[in-house]
Order: sequence, then structure tokens, then C-alpha cells
Amino acid sequence: MALGKDYEGQDCALARALELVGERWTLLVIRDAFYGVCRYSDFVAHLGIPRAVLSDRLQALTSAGVLERRRYSESPPRDEYVLTQMGKELWPALHALGHWGSRHMSPDGPSKFYVHAGCGTRLNAAGLCPECDGGPVPPEDVEVRPVREGRAGTRADPVSRALTRPHRMLRPLTEHA
Amino acid sequence: MALGKDYEGQDCALARALELVGERWTLLVIRDAFYGVCRYSDFVAHLGIPRAVLSDRLQALTSAGVLERRRYSESPPRDEYVLTQMGKELWPALHALGHWGSRHMSPDGPSKFYVHAGCGTRLNAAGLCPECDGGPVPPEDVEVRPVREGRAGTRADPVSRALTRPHRMLRPLTEHA
Repeated sequence: MALGKDYEGQDCALARALELVGERWTLLVIRDAFYGVCRYSDFVAHLGIPRAVLSDRLQALTSAGVLERRRYSESPPRDEYVLTQMGKELWPALHALGHWGSRHMSPDGPSKFYVHAGCGTRLNAAGLCPECDGGPVPPEDVEVRPVREGRAGTRADPVSRALTRPHRMLRPLTEHA
Repeated sequence: MALGKDYEGQDCALARALELVGERWTLLVIRDAFYGVCRYSDFVAHLGIPRAVLSDRLQALTSAGVLERRRYSESPPRDEYVLTQMGKELWPALHALGHWGSRHMSPDGPSKFYVHAGCGTRLNAAGLCPECDGGPVPPEDVEVRPVREGRAGTRADPVSRALTRPHRMLRPLTEHA
């Protein structure tokens, strides 16, 4: 079905958000950036999408100010992509949507969960730490943990392997070669 | 670009949520259901999408258990669509994404905002009422308000007109004919 890229006539902040993050795979690119994926090759390996699609999504997110592209090697020229403050502010929406998917769309239960790194308590549905009572936990203070630690599942890419261990969000997930 | 409908191999609750609500227009159908839109003709008029697309989205959401279809007239046969409990639990994700869009993607500012109906206080970024300190405000207790009350903007459909006044979420927005 051919549908325009814009939600024309929808005078609504949600519609405007979706014009950017509603593209297929875009929210999963952002999810990976929260996990600490920053290299093109790691996005490709973990998402398993065509390079043209990934390049398009990274370009759109960089233009919109959600990601920042930074050169980390001049020879060979290599860039990395990191979330800006604007991008980091998508965390509550991502967490809420993932929580809903985990509750309603995951018959075998979730494969990962999120804890407040400061105290080790699992975040609640609203992204708050029930122990610390200090408002929403910013992504910098969140650790993503696998439900079955050390179990690689069906994926063998570097990102999937790294995520079989607890990992502090936003910290680079794999070392630069 | 041809991309599969499924996020195959993405062992992730967010990906599973997106397989349903990541389809184009689906989150805007759900947004309208939160506003209290329940009739097919009102969805069509407010969203301005082809009937085939709307029917597909309503069918998928009903099958998945996000919406419930209820017959409200036998002659002529007419159905309405209302959010189930599972559907209502999408409110935190919708609110968070809309808040982000309002903050970062709306140069002229948002056209609507959300208040805790009990006390009239505007919800914060996390969907909490800063006055009442009682955790996330459920959508039943939220009122959607236009920034410029009574101003119809460019849309003249019944839903857009009704939303030029404050309205309690989830209550039917237009009367059955």
C-alpha cells in the first residue's frame, strides 16, 4: 500500500515524532545506540538490514539531531554515531514501548531487562526505580541485563555476544579495532 | 525499499511491539482511540487515510487484542472500536513519544497538551502529575486540551472540531448518529 512519508494534516506532536522515528528500523537503530552500539559495522551485524537502509536511517537521524557523527579514525576514515541529548530524551518512549512489548507480545518472556545501576533494582513500567524514589532513571544510570546470562541465543554477532553480559547503557559496547 | 514486515532475528520486546504498532498510521489510530474516537467514519475523517489502510490497521489491532470491536447498531449494522486494557497500557509510550515530538519536532509548539483531570495540572515528561505525587496518571484521568481553545485550525472533521475543547480521554468524542 502506498502511503505518503508524511502524516500530512495531522496537527499533532506524536505524528511529527513518527515522521522521523516511525520509519521502519529507525527505533531499533536508536535502541542499539542506547545499548552503546556506535560503529556502522556493528549496526549492520546486529540489525541484519541492508546497508542502504541503515545508511538512510543514520543519515536521517544525524540530520534531525538525534545522532551525532564523530570521526574516530582518519586512516582509514571511520565514523561513529552517538546519541545527542535530543536522542537520549527518547529513552522514556523506548522503555515504555519495550515494556509493553515485553508484557503483551513476548509469550516466552523478555530476553533482557533494565535495572537502576545505582542500586540494582529493576525499573518499573514507568521507567522509575521503585527503591530510590528519585523520578525517572536517566539512561546513563541504567544497566541492561540478559535474562539468561551468558546464553548467546541464535545470534553470534559482536553486539549480541556483548549483550549476554550486563552492560551500562550508552557506554561503547564493543572496542574499536 | 523492500523491507520485511517482521523484525526477524531481533530477540527484543521493542521489536515485537513494533511488529504490531510500528506499521504506518497504527499509532495514530491508537492515539485517536485514546481521544475517544470509536467510529470507523470518524477515524477515516480525522486520519484522512484510505479505507483499505484503516481497515487493515483496525483488523490487526483487533486481532492482537489492542482494540475490541463492539456492535452498537444492528440495523444498519455498525461497529465501534474501543481500547482494551492491553491497548490502554500503550498510553505511557504514546505520551512519552508525543512529549518528545512536542519538545523537539514542533517549532511552533504543540497544539494540544495533557492535564491531570483531578487537579488540572499539566502532566510532566514522564506522564506524572507534579502536584499529586501519585505515580503515572492513567489515561482515564487525563484531559486533552487544545493550546488555542475554540480554534479549529485547518481541519473541519468532527473529531478535529470536538478537540478544540477540553476532552476527557477515552470518553466517546462524538455522539452516535
